[in-house]
Amino acid sequence: MNYTPILEEIYTDIQPLLGEGKIADYIPELAHVSADKFGMAVQTIDGDLYHIGDSAEKFSIQSISKVFTLTMAMQLEGDKLWTRIGREPSGTAFNSLVQLEYENGIPRNPFINAGALVVTDIILTHYGNAHRSVLDFIHILCRQADIDFDRAVAHSERETGYRNAALAYFLKSFGNLHNDAVQVLDAYFHHCSLAMSCVELARAGIYLANGGKLPWNDQVIVTSNQAKYINSLMLTCGTYDSVGDFAYRVGLPGKSGVGGGILAVMPNEFSVCVWSPGLNASGNSLAGTRALELFTTLTGISIF
Amino acid sequence: MNYTPILEEIYTDIQPLLGEGKIADYIPELAHVSADKFGMAVQTIDGDLYHIGDSAEKFSIQSISKVFTLTMAMQLEGDKLWTRIGREPSGTAFNSLVQLEYENGIPRNPFINAGALVVTDIILTHYGNAHRSVLDFIHILCRQADIDFDRAVAHSERETGYRNAALAYFLKSFGNLHNDAVQVLDAYFHHCSLAMSCVELARAGIYLANGGKLPWNDQVIVTSNQAKYINSLMLTCGTYDSVGDFAYRVGLPGKSGVGGGILAVMPNEFSVCVWSPGLNASGNSLAGTRALELFTTLTGISIF
Amino acid sequence: MNYTPILEEIYTDIQPLLGEGKIADYIPELAHVSADKFGMAVQTIDGDLYHIGDSAEKFSIQSISKVFTLTMAMQLEGDKLWTRIGREPSGTAFNSLVQLEYENGIPRNPFINAGALVVTDIILTHYGNAHRSVLDFIHILCRQADIDFDRAVAHSERETGYRNAALAYFLKSFGNLHNDAVQVLDAYFHHCSLAMSCVELARAGIYLANGGKLPWNDQVIVTSNQAKYINSLMLTCGTYDSVGDFAYRVGLPGKSGVGGGILAVMPNEFSVCVWSPGLNASGNSLAGTRALELFTTLTGISIF
Amino acid sequence: MNYTPILEEIYTDIQPLLGEGKIADYIPELAHVSADKFGMAVQTIDGDLYHIGDSAEKFSIQSISKVFTLTMAMQLEGDKLWTRIGREPSGTAFNSLVQLEYENGIPRNPFINAGALVVTDIILTHYGNAHRSVLDFIHILCRQADIDFDRAVAHSERETGYRNAALAYFLKSFGNLHNDAVQVLDAYFHHCSLAMSCVELARAGIYLANGGKLPWNDQVIVTSNQAKYINSLMLTCGTYDSVGDFAYRVGLPGKSGVGGGILAVMPNEFSVCVWSPGLNASGNSLAGTRALELFTTLTGISIF
Repeated sequence: MNYTPILEEIYTDIQPLLGEGKIADYIPELAHVSADKFGMAVQTIDGDLYHIGDSAEKFSIQSISKVFTLTMAMQLEGDKLWTRIGREPSGTAFNSLVQLEYENGIPRNPFINAGALVVTDIILTHYGNAHRSVLDFIHILCRQADIDFDRAVAHSERETGYRNAALAYFLKSFGNLHNDAVQVLDAYFHHCSLAMSCVELARAGIYLANGGKLPWNDQVIVTSNQAKYINSLMLTCGTYDSVGDFAYRVGLPGKSGVGGGILAVMPNEFSVCVWSPGLNASGNSLAGTRALELFTTLTGISIF
Repeated sequence: MNYTPILEEIYTDIQPLLGEGKIADYIPELAHVSADKFGMAVQTIDGDLYHIGDSAEKFSIQSISKVFTLTMAMQLEGDKLWTRIGREPSGTAFNSLVQLEYENGIPRNPFINAGALVVTDIILTHYGNAHRSVLDFIHILCRQADIDFDRAVAHSERETGYRNAALAYFLKSFGNLHNDAVQVLDAYFHHCSLAMSCVELARAGIYLANGGKLPWNDQVIVTSNQAKYINSLMLTCGTYDSVGDFAYRVGLPGKSGVGGGILAVMPNEFSVCVWSPGLNASGNSLAGTRALELFTTLTGISIF
Repeated sequence: MNYTPILEEIYTDIQPLLGEGKIADYIPELAHVSADKFGMAVQTIDGDLYHIGDSAEKFSIQSISKVFTLTMAMQLEGDKLWTRIGREPSGTAFNSLVQLEYENGIPRNPFINAGALVVTDIILTHYGNAHRSVLDFIHILCRQADIDFDRAVAHSERETGYRNAALAYFLKSFGNLHNDAVQVLDAYFHHCSLAMSCVELARAGIYLANGGKLPWNDQVIVTSNQAKYINSLMLTCGTYDSVGDFAYRVGLPGKSGVGGGILAVMPNEFSVCVWSPGLNASGNSLAGTRALELFTTLTGISIF
Repeated sequence: MNYTPILEEIYTDIQPLLGEGKIADYIPELAHVSADKFGMAVQTIDGDLYHIGDSAEKFSIQSISKVFTLTMAMQLEGDKLWTRIGREPSGTAFNSLVQLEYENGIPRNPFINAGALVVTDIILTHYGNAHRSVLDFIHILCRQADIDFDRAVAHSERETGYRNAALAYFLKSFGNLHNDAVQVLDAYFHHCSLAMSCVELARAGIYLANGGKLPWNDQVIVTSNQAKYINSLMLTCGTYDSVGDFAYRVGLPGKSGVGGGILAVMPNEFSVCVWSPGLNASGNSLAGTRALELFTTLTGISIF
C-alpha cells in the first residue's frame, strides 16, 4: 500500500489545528518549541518508509521512552516484572499519588510515571548504568548511533520535577524502589529527554509491529508474545486518561508524550509516529491524535 | 480453519480448573448453578459453528447484556450518547460510586453498572417498553424467537439490588436518569436476567466481528465504525477491573458477566462465547478466561 | 450576666451581612424565605431568656433535628449505637458517598446524612412510628405541644431527595438499614422539616447545657456523660466541613442546618440559637456564624 | 484541688494495660523503649505540680512538638498562616497524600505531617536556623536549658522517612514549601526527636491553659485568643484519626505522639501530660488515653 497520498491528505486536513492545543510549558526547553510543527512517518515491516512535514526534526520524546524502557525490563525480568507493577488502566490523572496509596505502592501500570520509575529502578539494578544501557538499546533499535539525551531538558526536569521526586520517595516508602531515589530520578529524567525524530521513532518501534524482531536482520528484541503484551499495554494504558477515547477514535495501540509525539503500531503492518507540540486536555498531541484518526479512517485500518 | 481440535485440547486442559473460582451467590438462582459446567462456541463470519461441552445450556448472561443494550443506544442516539456516558476504563471496582461522585454523575463507561443504567434509561425513553424492545432485538440477532428473561433471576435481583438502586438514585440526583428510577431498575434487572447458551451468544455477537452486519442476510445492525467502537470499548472496559490483564492474556475484545459467561470477538473472523460459573478475583469466569487465553495462544490469533 | 446589650450590639454589627450568603434553594419552600431575617435567643440554665430580632419566627430546622434524634437513639441504645455509626469528623462534603464506601457502610458520625438515616432507622425499629415519637420528644423538650412538621417541606424533600435515597439504598446494601428504605427516608425528611423558632430551639437544647436534665423540672433526658458526648460530637462533627473553622472562631459545640439555623451550647451556662437564612460556602448560616463569633468574643466565653 | 489520690487511683487502674498496644517500631530508637513505662504529670496554673510513675523519664515527644512549632508559626505570621494550611480535621490516616492532592497542596491542618512541614518551612524562613530557634523556644517554655534533641532518633527518622520526603516534595510541587526540601525535613525530624519528660511537657504546655501566658512571670507567649485557637485545633485535629473518639472519651483538647506521649489542656486550670509507649489502633497511647479518660471521669472535669 502506498501511504503517500494519504499522508498528504492528512497534512492538508490538520493544518487548521496547528497552533491549537497547549504546549507543555513546565520547563523552558519544551515551552520554546514552535506551535506549528507537524511531522508524520510510517515505517512498514517490509522496509518502506513514508513521511511528511517536520518528520526529520528531533523533539523530546518524553513518555514515549516508557515503551523502550518497559521493553528492556521485560527482557531482564520477564513476567517477574508484574509483581512490582500492575497492568491495569489507571482511571485517574496520569501522575496521581492516590491510587498508589490505595494499592500499597504497586503502580497500576508501567506507563504512569510511578510505574516507569520502577522500570527505571529495575534497569539500574541490572545494568548499573541506566543512562548508557538505554542509549545503547535505542541505538540498536534505530540502527543509528547518534541519538542522544537532551541534557538541558534532563537538567530542567530534575530541577523542577518535585512531583516525580514525591512519587519516587513514596515508592521507596513502600519498598518498591531498590536504588537511591536521586539516582533513579536522574536516569528517568534522562530517558524522557531523548531527542528523536518521527522517522527515527517509527523505526525504533517497528519491532512491535513485527512480532518482536527487527525486520532488517531478524534480531529478536522480545518474543512474539511479549510484543503483543506491549501492544496491549499501549492500547489499555498508553495515552494517559483518554485511552478509551484514543482506542475508540484511532483504533491502534499507541503511546504519547508531552513533547507532542505519539508512537502507534498496526501489528504485522507498520509503526507510525506523529508529532505536533500542541496538546489536548488529556495531554496527548491534538493534531497528532487527529492525524492518526484520519490515517486509520482513510486506510480503513484498525485492530478492531 | 477447523477449530474442533483446538476446542478439544482446551476442553481437556481446563478440566482441572472446573470447581475452582467462586460462583456468584448474591441471589440463590445464580448460586445453585453447578460448578463443573463448561461450554464454548465459536461462530465464524462464514457461518461455521464450532462448539464443545455445555455449549447449548442456557445461563444467566448478566453484564454481557450491556453489549446489546449499548448497541441499541448507539442505534438510537449515535455519538450524542457520549454526553451522558464516558468511554474510559473505570480503574476501580465495577460498581463503585466514588468515581461517579467525582465526575458529577457521568459514568466512566457504558459497561459499569451506572453506565448501563443510563443506557437502559435511553432505551426506555425511546421505546417506552424496555423489556419488549430488548427481547425483540436479541431475537433478531439470534434469528431465534424463544430467548427470554429468567423472571426468577430478575425478581431476585430486584429484591436485593440495593447497590444498583443507590446508583440509580445517585444518577437521578445528578439529573442523568430521565425516567423513574424504579422503572429503569426493573428493566435493567430484566436485561441482566436474559438466559442464553454459548451457541446463542456467539451467534448474537457475530455482527461485531462482521463490520456491524448480520452475515446471513447482510442486515445492518450498526455501521462498520460503530462495530469497531463497541469492540474498542469491550477491550478497554469490558472485563471489570482486569481489562489490562485480559487484553494482555487473551488479546481480544471481550465482555464478561457474573453468570460466568464471556463473549469475545476477533474482528473479520469470529465471535466466541465461553461459559463456566466459577469466577476469579476480578469477577470474570476463571476457566473461561483461561480457555480464551489458550484459544488465542493455540491459534496464534490476537488483535495485537 | 445580662446578655441584652450584647445581643443588641451583635444585632447592629451583623446588619451589613444580611442578604449575603446563599439561601438553600433545592426546594421552593426553603428558597422563598426572606434573606434579611435574623433572630437570636439565649436560654440560660437558670431560666433566663434573652432574644432579639426574628427570634419568634419559625424556620425549617433541618439538620439541627439530628441532635434530637441522636439524643433519642442514645436513650434507646446507649453505646451499642457506635457499632453502626462512627464518631469521627467526615473530612469531606457532608453527604459524600465516598467515605461510606471505604468504610463499608458505617457512616463516620451521626450528623452526616448517612449517620442520621441510621439514627432514624433505630428510632423506627424501637417506636414503630418515627414521626409521632420525635414530635412527642420535642414537645417534652420545649414544654410546648404545638411544634409540628412542615409537611410541604417534608413532601418537597421527598420528591427531590434522590441523593438521600441513594444513601439509604447504599446503607441497605451494607446491611446497615434494617427498615424499608422508603419508610426511613419519609421519617427522616419529616424530622428535617420541623418548624421551630430560635426561642423554641434554644429551650429545646438547654438539657445539653444542663448535664442532660431539663432545668425546670430536673427531668433526666440523658445522663450527664451522654450530654457531654453529644456536645463533643457537635464540636467535632456538627458544622459540616468547617468544624475546625467553627471551633476556632466560635469556640462552642454547635449544630447547623441548611435552613440557616445554628444551635450552640455553653456547658453549665446556656444554649443559644441563631437564625439567618443566607449560607456561607460550607453550608452554615453566614450571619449566624458571625453572630456566634461576636457573642463569644464579646462575652469572653468559650469552652477553650 | 489535690490531684494526688486521683493520680494514684489511675496508676493502679491502668496497670493491666501496660504492655498492651503496639510500640512504634519503624526506627530502632523508638522500638527499644520498655513497654511497661507509664508516667503522668499535672501542672496547674497556680504553680502546683502533681505527678506519678515514670513522670521524670525523658521520651521522644514526636508529634507533640507540632503544638510548639505551630505556636511559633502563629507568633510569626498570625492569621496569614491559614493561607498555607487549613484548620479542618483530616478524616483519613494522618499522613495521607490523598487529601493533599485533592486540595492542591494545602494541608488540612497543622497537626498532620504535611501541615507541620509547612509550619517548619515558615520557621526556617523567619529564623534561618530552625533547630536552634525551636530549642530556644522550648527552653523558655520550660524554664530549663538542658532540653535537647535526641540526635540518634533524628538521624534514624531521616534515614527512613521516605514518606515524609514524599510529602515534602509533593508540597514543593504545589509551591507550598519555600525552602529546600532536604533542609525542611532535617529540621522537622529534629523537632520530632525532642526528648522530654511528662513533668517537662506539662510545664511547657501550661501557657495553653493560662490564656497564652507563662504563669510564673506573665510572659505572653501568644494572645489569649491564639491560645484558644490552638486548644480548638488540638481538640478537632490533635489525635490523628480518632479526634472524635478522644473528645468523646476524654473531653479535653490534646495532642499525641507516636512516642506514646499525650499533652492535654483544661483551660484556666491545668495542663496534663501522660506517657506510655504502647499505642492503640489509631496511633495514640493506649494506657495514656485511658488514663486521661479516667482523670476527667474521676475529677468530673471536661470542656463539655
